[in-house]
Amino acid sequence: MADTMSEMVDAALAAAKPRCGEGTVADYIPALAKVDPNQIGLAVATTDGVCHTAGDADTPFSIQSVSKVFTLALALERTSDALWSCVGREPSGTAFNSIVQLESENGRPRNPLINAGAIAVTDRLIGDRSTEETIAELVGFLRERAVDDTIEIDEEVAQSEAKAGARNRSLAHFMAAFDNLTQPVETALGAYFRQCALSLSCRQLAQAGLFLACNGRDPKTGAQIISEERCRRINAVMMTCGHYDNSGEFAFRVGLPGKSGVGGGILAIAPGRGAIAAWSPGLNKAGTSLAGSAALEHFAKAAGWSVFD
Amino acid sequence: MADTMSEMVDAALAAAKPRCGEGTVADYIPALAKVDPNQIGLAVATTDGVCHTAGDADTPFSIQSVSKVFTLALALERTSDALWSCVGREPSGTAFNSIVQLESENGRPRNPLINAGAIAVTDRLIGDRSTEETIAELVGFLRERAVDDTIEIDEEVAQSEAKAGARNRSLAHFMAAFDNLTQPVETALGAYFRQCALSLSCRQLAQAGLFLACNGRDPKTGAQIISEERCRRINAVMMTCGHYDNSGEFAFRVGLPGKSGVGGGILAIAPGRGAIAAWSPGLNKAGTSLAGSAALEHFAKAAGWSVFD
Amino acid sequence: MADTMSEMVDAALAAAKPRCGEGTVADYIPALAKVDPNQIGLAVATTDGVCHTAGDADTPFSIQSVSKVFTLALALERTSDALWSCVGREPSGTAFNSIVQLESENGRPRNPLINAGAIAVTDRLIGDRSTEETIAELVGFLRERAVDDTIEIDEEVAQSEAKAGARNRSLAHFMAAFDNLTQPVETALGAYFRQCALSLSCRQLAQAGLFLACNGRDPKTGAQIISEERCRRINAVMMTCGHYDNSGEFAFRVGLPGKSGVGGGILAIAPGRGAIAAWSPGLNKAGTSLAGSAALEHFAKAAGWSVFD
Amino acid sequence: MADTMSEMVDAALAAAKPRCGEGTVADYIPALAKVDPNQIGLAVATTDGVCHTAGDADTPFSIQSVSKVFTLALALERTSDALWSCVGREPSGTAFNSIVQLESENGRPRNPLINAGAIAVTDRLIGDRSTEETIAELVGFLRERAVDDTIEIDEEVAQSEAKAGARNRSLAHFMAAFDNLTQPVETALGAYFRQCALSLSCRQLAQAGLFLACNGRDPKTGAQIISEERCRRINAVMMTCGHYDNSGEFAFRVGLPGKSGVGGGILAIAPGRGAIAAWSPGLNKAGTSLAGSAALEHFAKAAGWSVFD
Repeated sequence: MADTMSEMVDAALAAAKPRCGEGTVADYIPALAKVDPNQIGLAVATTDGVCHTAGDADTPFSIQSVSKVFTLALALERTSDALWSCVGREPSGTAFNSIVQLESENGRPRNPLINAGAIAVTDRLIGDRSTEETIAELVGFLRERAVDDTIEIDEEVAQSEAKAGARNRSLAHFMAAFDNLTQPVETALGAYFRQCALSLSCRQLAQAGLFLACNGRDPKTGAQIISEERCRRINAVMMTCGHYDNSGEFAFRVGLPGKSGVGGGILAIAPGRGAIAAWSPGLNKAGTSLAGSAALEHFAKAAGWSVFD
Repeated sequence: MADTMSEMVDAALAAAKPRCGEGTVADYIPALAKVDPNQIGLAVATTDGVCHTAGDADTPFSIQSVSKVFTLALALERTSDALWSCVGREPSGTAFNSIVQLESENGRPRNPLINAGAIAVTDRLIGDRSTEETIAELVGFLRERAVDDTIEIDEEVAQSEAKAGARNRSLAHFMAAFDNLTQPVETALGAYFRQCALSLSCRQLAQAGLFLACNGRDPKTGAQIISEERCRRINAVMMTCGHYDNSGEFAFRVGLPGKSGVGGGILAIAPGRGAIAAWSPGLNKAGTSLAGSAALEHFAKAAGWSVFD
Repeated sequence: MADTMSEMVDAALAAAKPRCGEGTVADYIPALAKVDPNQIGLAVATTDGVCHTAGDADTPFSIQSVSKVFTLALALERTSDALWSCVGREPSGTAFNSIVQLESENGRPRNPLINAGAIAVTDRLIGDRSTEETIAELVGFLRERAVDDTIEIDEEVAQSEAKAGARNRSLAHFMAAFDNLTQPVETALGAYFRQCALSLSCRQLAQAGLFLACNGRDPKTGAQIISEERCRRINAVMMTCGHYDNSGEFAFRVGLPGKSGVGGGILAIAPGRGAIAAWSPGLNKAGTSLAGSAALEHFAKAAGWSVFD
Repeated sequence: MADTMSEMVDAALAAAKPRCGEGTVADYIPALAKVDPNQIGLAVATTDGVCHTAGDADTPFSIQSVSKVFTLALALERTSDALWSCVGREPSGTAFNSIVQLESENGRPRNPLINAGAIAVTDRLIGDRSTEETIAELVGFLRERAVDDTIEIDEEVAQSEAKAGARNRSLAHFMAAFDNLTQPVETALGAYFRQCALSLSCRQLAQAGLFLACNGRDPKTGAQIISEERCRRINAVMMTCGHYDNSGEFAFRVGLPGKSGVGGGILAIAPGRGAIAAWSPGLNKAGTSLAGSAALEHFAKAAGWSVFD
């Protein structure tokens, strides 16, 4: 007889736990560097509204680039497909913060899930609003999705990001040189750094991302948050571009659309089934959590949730 | 009431037909250049063994790089995961015949579905056999899958490929310089050029690829052709790398693992549902059939077959 | 009988004049865009202290990147060979504002005569001083060399540069990300933009550069401004790197160390013989004055001043 | 009182000798790998026909890429400036065997002194002749220049080069893919590998190259071997491109047009003064002899032969 969902979540965590502490913890800002690497959490939110967790699934962590998915969803709602004139949807084949491709392609980032692309997307999300309103919309969106008003931005992290943000500043000014930002560089970056600093637990993250597994619907109310087609397409972009130059490997091993962040978090979507959030701080060279992706691989295999199954 | 499969195949062809003749027909060899661009075929083989077709679905065409998928499947059976030491599984972000990445990554191609990668894979597929035996295995495999003994290599095309193959020779010698070929360059290329020259109709191609939609099983006999895990993984590689620097766009629009060839053919796999082959000679800049991918997009949407659905 | 120097200067100008108006005038800032393209000036300052001129040789123009040579000379005096830890001395093979090389070489610019390199050099030139002191030293140096107290920075140009400086900001932040700036980015850039905005006539520029043709000595007083070895080496860097991805062509045609600027000015040094300044606003694709380099080619050939003669 | 030429040659050798054995001896072919690294030779041929030598100046070594200069001179004589349509004259900024630039610039090598460029030049040198005639012309030319009929190609080295030539084959096929070879690839490479295998001593090499220091004239007979302008221009190309991604450094330190080979030889030209050949097998990362360039640096400084002096 098949294992229950809870058993599979526990088993995946147990299988991945030995890899806790492997890899490198992001150390470009103090708030990330001081995180204890021997933590691992896993949460699986299913379309029926239940959330199964294991390990440190209620410890908030800095979701970093995982936020790019939510920013993308909101920016597409705001600007519709016009967004795609400022950013592509092809894998870049390069690191998260590479600027090489920007030079050969006239300041248009390859996709919205690398830093340059997410800065451009955040810039469009602002539109004619203040940074505060923009960030308030984003935080509100996550709280509503996760039904949890405690979700917040870690302002200390945001300030550290801004301080350590030379490379992102370089990307932003480069795009500005090609008129591919609509806001002043520091405005776009200010919002970008703050959305990177969102702090969520695995449980919160899995629930916040669940609408992407539900054809764009809120699983509780049935309300259509984003259109079905847009939902499919965001998942497609996550599948091909969600992990920088590790995207192919993630698809190969896990078989699900996903997005990783250098805080060690990963959000993966199993369309029609559920959203999975894994977290463990140790990263591989491409900036993806080692134990986190191991947990996802184990779970996806056991549950038969790979989209290629 | 939902449309029948046949109706959806017809409708997809009709929707894509106006794009017939758009784009550029591959002209680097005479045999491809002379193909009438105003042709389009579509075939959908479902896991129940039925094949639905529309348009020029019984006209054989040069499948070109679509063959890379079959060569990969056979080479993985032959060498198992050792194959991955000679080739990666990440999208390259570059054109089908780019050599730039080979230089920065010491002669190891990014993935098996770009030219350099497929040459390395073909090289391993040969192993200790002759080219003839190797190609015979490949042709035999396709005939068995499609239950059609008329599938053949177009030797005129193979010879033209060899003649026009300077860029592929450059890639092969470059890999040889890094000891990433086990055969003499011309041996590896000889087999490579011949497998590119396979000639199949949409009907044959859809049926030949159907095992990839059936967890690696032959849908008729139930025999396990390749393992379930390997099948999932080949689909993952097709999803992230199947269309060179157009892979993201294909995933975005069609939402299925696929592989395109400059002959205008595309094979797409809907796991658990079926295999789809589309063909129309006019190509976009990345070498993917314009009308062919339009037909696939229409069909996948109508049938709800996107893996992101 | 050989032509006199004056005759050769006139003849070179006459030969180049038909090319006036060819090419493109830099238009990224209004002050450059509005310059009349149908101007050409030529000045040859010989080691005996005489200056021969032709055409618009007394019209001040924005020397732009030609200033990089003077900044380099002063920064080497200030920091000595320690400067070479922050910047290389190899041709880049790329455009003046390329960022690609910075990424593969960890934020260390290839040479001091491309934008990134000159920003790093300017940063070191500042040291523990204010921007005002730094720029005052540079302007004072040029005035002393040219014995002309009217040499000034065009503050309108400097402000326009700062406003239009997104690409240079990107370069600077990129270097900052690799800790290759000692000043805050905007401080380094502030000084960089001001030195780009130096306004000199051909006559002033040739006289200001003459010490580089005199083994580093002031030709009037005999005072050693920079050491002989340093003088040779600055000339060597100008020879291999002075014109971005047009450096080889300039060496091939003119045969002299030189530095061009997008204002249309070029300074060329004939060691032991003299300094030549040419100016005409129309640029080739690499940002070098077309008529200006033609005038230099004619003059160098007639005078037999090529270092390869 | 100034040192005599002989004293300066001896002193330069003595100063460089301690660096003998530093660096890496080329080991891609056995004939080079087995050379004793503790050898160093220096020869200075002056325009008056005298040749001063020190150390192992009469030991023949494989001149390798130094031959590219002679091939270039002969090919320019044969095809005149039409040669420049197949090859540029800009520094590449990359390694001797890089293929990256070829891809972005459509198969046209940056300059004739990198491998790809020299293959293209050799291809044109062949023209409608046989390889034997072509090589005979080259050997004859060197013998005549050096007045030494013992100069030969080391056929064992030539065969080793051909065997180990995968990377060069890759470059050649890449150019062929862009129709930038006129001969079959193996014909062009056959001649290329043979000219690389020329074996000369420092004395022979300095004398063979002396015409480049004499405005293209044979210093003994006064015969114009190549035009004055062409001579200047070849020197210019050597100055900016003669040492791959070490060209700037060589200009900076030595101040002379030069060409290095992985056999450890370097030919440097002091226009109007003489030709210098240095040899020592230990190479830096860019493939330039460490002790050889040190000897050249010492000699050029002592003799005041830098073109920037």
